[in-house]
Amino acid sequence: MSVNEVWSIDPRTGREIKLVAASTSTAEVGAVAAAAWMAERELVGFGRAARAGLLRRLAAALEGRSDKLIRVADRESALGAPRLNAELARTIGQLRLFADTVQDGSYQEIVTTPALTDLDPPMPDLRRMLIPVGPVVVFGASNFPFAFSVLGGDTAAALAAGCPVVVKCHSGHPETSVLTMEAWRQAAAETGAPEEAVQLVFGRTAGRQLVQHPSIKAVAFTGSLAVGRELHDLAAGRPDPVPFYGELAGVNPLVVTPGAARDRGEEIGGSVVASFTLNGGQFCTKPGLLFVPAGPDGDRVVATAGERVAELQPAVMLTAGTQSSYQAGLQALVDHPHTRTVARVPDVIAGGASGQGGSGGYLGTPALLEVMIGDLDQSVLNECFGPVAVAVRYESIGQVIDVLEQLEGSLAAAVHTTEPEAELATALTKAVLPKVGRVVYNGFPTGVAVTAAMTHGGPWPATTNALHSSVGPTSIRRFLRPVTFQNAPQAVLPAELRDLDEPVRG
Amino acid sequence: MSVNEVWSIDPRTGREIKLVAASTSTAEVGAVAAAAWMAERELVGFGRAARAGLLRRLAAALEGRSDKLIRVADRESALGAPRLNAELARTIGQLRLFADTVQDGSYQEIVTTPALTDLDPPMPDLRRMLIPVGPVVVFGASNFPFAFSVLGGDTAAALAAGCPVVVKCHSGHPETSVLTMEAWRQAAAETGAPEEAVQLVFGRTAGRQLVQHPSIKAVAFTGSLAVGRELHDLAAGRPDPVPFYGELAGVNPLVVTPGAARDRGEEIGGSVVASFTLNGGQFCTKPGLLFVPAGPDGDRVVATAGERVAELQPAVMLTAGTQSSYQAGLQALVDHPHTRTVARVPDVIAGGASGQGGSGGYLGTPALLEVMIGDLDQSVLNECFGPVAVAVRYESIGQVIDVLEQLEGSLAAAVHTTEPEAELATALTKAVLPKVGRVVYNGFPTGVAVTAAMTHGGPWPATTNALHSSVGPTSIRRFLRPVTFQNAPQAVLPAELRDLDEPVRG
Repeated sequence: MSVNEVWSIDPRTGREIKLVAASTSTAEVGAVAAAAWMAERELVGFGRAARAGLLRRLAAALEGRSDKLIRVADRESALGAPRLNAELARTIGQLRLFADTVQDGSYQEIVTTPALTDLDPPMPDLRRMLIPVGPVVVFGASNFPFAFSVLGGDTAAALAAGCPVVVKCHSGHPETSVLTMEAWRQAAAETGAPEEAVQLVFGRTAGRQLVQHPSIKAVAFTGSLAVGRELHDLAAGRPDPVPFYGELAGVNPLVVTPGAARDRGEEIGGSVVASFTLNGGQFCTKPGLLFVPAGPDGDRVVATAGERVAELQPAVMLTAGTQSSYQAGLQALVDHPHTRTVARVPDVIAGGASGQGGSGGYLGTPALLEVMIGDLDQSVLNECFGPVAVAVRYESIGQVIDVLEQLEGSLAAAVHTTEPEAELATALTKAVLPKVGRVVYNGFPTGVAVTAAMTHGGPWPATTNALHSSVGPTSIRRFLRPVTFQNAPQAVLPAELRDLDEPVRG
Repeated sequence: MSVNEVWSIDPRTGREIKLVAASTSTAEVGAVAAAAWMAERELVGFGRAARAGLLRRLAAALEGRSDKLIRVADRESALGAPRLNAELARTIGQLRLFADTVQDGSYQEIVTTPALTDLDPPMPDLRRMLIPVGPVVVFGASNFPFAFSVLGGDTAAALAAGCPVVVKCHSGHPETSVLTMEAWRQAAAETGAPEEAVQLVFGRTAGRQLVQHPSIKAVAFTGSLAVGRELHDLAAGRPDPVPFYGELAGVNPLVVTPGAARDRGEEIGGSVVASFTLNGGQFCTKPGLLFVPAGPDGDRVVATAGERVAELQPAVMLTAGTQSSYQAGLQALVDHPHTRTVARVPDVIAGGASGQGGSGGYLGTPALLEVMIGDLDQSVLNECFGPVAVAVRYESIGQVIDVLEQLEGSLAAAVHTTEPEAELATALTKAVLPKVGRVVYNGFPTGVAVTAAMTHGGPWPATTNALHSSVGPTSIRRFLRPVTFQNAPQAVLPAELRDLDEPVRG
């Protein structure tokens, strides 16, 4: 495999299946950026109704390809058809939600204040609205080949805003990405949208170059802390820095109160395993740190969870890189002097391949560890992306609050509690709120509803900018900026800002 | 004057008048940041009604000190009583506007979506709102000792949001700043607000340290491109980068169309001088680049403007640094091989002091230059902060559009045009909109109305983040982030998110 070749790989076997593309060259990156710049101009004329129609056509074009998309995406990601079906449905739903958002128009936040000429100084006629920021680069995420990839939430939000998108293909699912682009081209042709309003590039170099390209005005990224930090720094270091919206890392703390452990210990212990091992634990919202009381009630939570983990098969991880960092992170947790391994699945699928040797797929072994709260150190508090969680055993809620206050940011936290513990739940909420974008009660953070009430965001390193959500219609804000027209003649105003009672020519 | 001494200086004479403070030491910065962190906690309990009351008390406390504030600010800034009166009135009005904003509550952008348990997967109960980001550092601006300083717009917005503020005092008006802090302390005492919710520090080192301090969660800055870039890079380079809202530089292009030059050439030529020389041209919105048609109509614009400039006295600039960079920038424009100096005021006030020698104040000399559009280069397109503008003579609007498309970002642009030129005005609007936050028609960008329809922002280097306005109630957004409560018990919810029909204890 040459550096310039982009191969589709089967993570279940580690084999190269198909040569999909070549890495995008520097010259091609320049052409792509120029085309995005041109497409921005064309999209101005391709107004709100047309954009809403385009988004609906895109949804339909994906729907029409769903069987093939799911087959290819499963072969590239090993996430399985049921999950991919649900993810594609969500992706299609997102496109339709953004179509509604665009059509509704209130996302433009129009405010007009009439002239008040008898004031001193007089108040001019002011008309404000949000307009697109310009071309956006979207980095596809390994763990959501549809929902956070070529036509995923970031692209849908940017297109809805009126911004052209250049997608940097994730190396984990190039064939899915190319296939998704077919849906784009079909919808663009059907609606007359500029075909270059969505373009696909390959390779890390192309990604880095685009982040620094003067025509690119914002970047959306979902991925690792290391790569996210690097790209963030490139975006911030430009002669003209641009917003970088990255979703990077987090341990997503989950607290089981003494009452919850007592009343629902086994139920919670079972369900939490489903949450942290789902799809190989490869979720940004995976609960990685479980605060469980010391003593017999907490023991029951841990024991039940351990039994569940022991029943699992190894997961097939998304990529070779994900597997190797997971297994290294897991080994470091296991080797930590103060952790105890409650359960760890062997890295062999019954009758199948080993993940360690040359013969097999990218196996990640589910595990549950345990540590006393007094023995915590930063190495246990870093995210380990994959099917593992650490149960932190505590003596008092005060200890939990102390640790929560030391944590870095996460997308979400969860609190399992009981009704009589209102005071304690309130104290935990206060402690955790500064660290997260969402708090889930008596539930699990995996599973993110796509609504205007959702926040998928949070303080660094959960995201690079806690002011925004990357899920739901409010995520469109990342790609809009305000402008004000002062004492403008009707003819120069966008349609949305014109007086309703005056006919306009020209 | 030792490095650690903070002196109040009279820019009319260049003399040190009063020792106001010492630069804040590293140890003190640590204590200030810790106090801000504590104040953040206290402000949580100091809810919306209390914050609105605090902002109103602050307005009254400033009002009660207005005579003295204006006297001291004039002595430190030489901006003159009429302007400072208007600026203080605006500052007081801003505080009241934010009080209304907080009381109204819609800035919290509450969205709740009820549980839908019969869906698959079920939709949880979700309740979203915006909460404060945490302690904010505000850098006072030299050119607005009230409206962009200790209790100016940034502080008002941050306090309204519920964020404690540390103000880095601008060295140009330390005595005004200390006096303003008295108003803060009075209002805090009257309302029981935590006194450390606004603190004042002195010196560049303290400012830099705060931008990098882990307790600080956002930065607002108004000042030069060089300092702004440095602080931006510090904020972005933190282990946990935080938003940096800087307002840095821009030429604020102004276009006079052929029709406007023909119909109102003299009027525009006169008024534009008032705009670019007002208060020594020391406005972020000063129109610095005037596109004027070649030929006799345009000649009339330039000639009238030149005559007006020649009638002016030198301005007293805010600080020694502002004066020296202005005079150096002006000299570079004058020495440019392709510019012609239309008018330049001598640097002597009739019967007064010279700005060049050791005897006098910080004089800045108003000037108007002219250049043919084909002779433009980047050195003419950089902002020169002070009372100068360059008239760029063009043959066709196409030439103007070409130059506009090459410009960097500005806060505002202006278009002087006539009704029959609708097509031309539309083309100019399209060309200029990607570069600015506001377009003014048949008027001047200086003078910024404080309303929800205002945008005081724009692409780099006008600001460091074009998504926001630093003027008007929408500026509060810079200091808020979204959070979502999922299936939360009533008791843990903020008052605003609770069910209305259920009584709550605890």
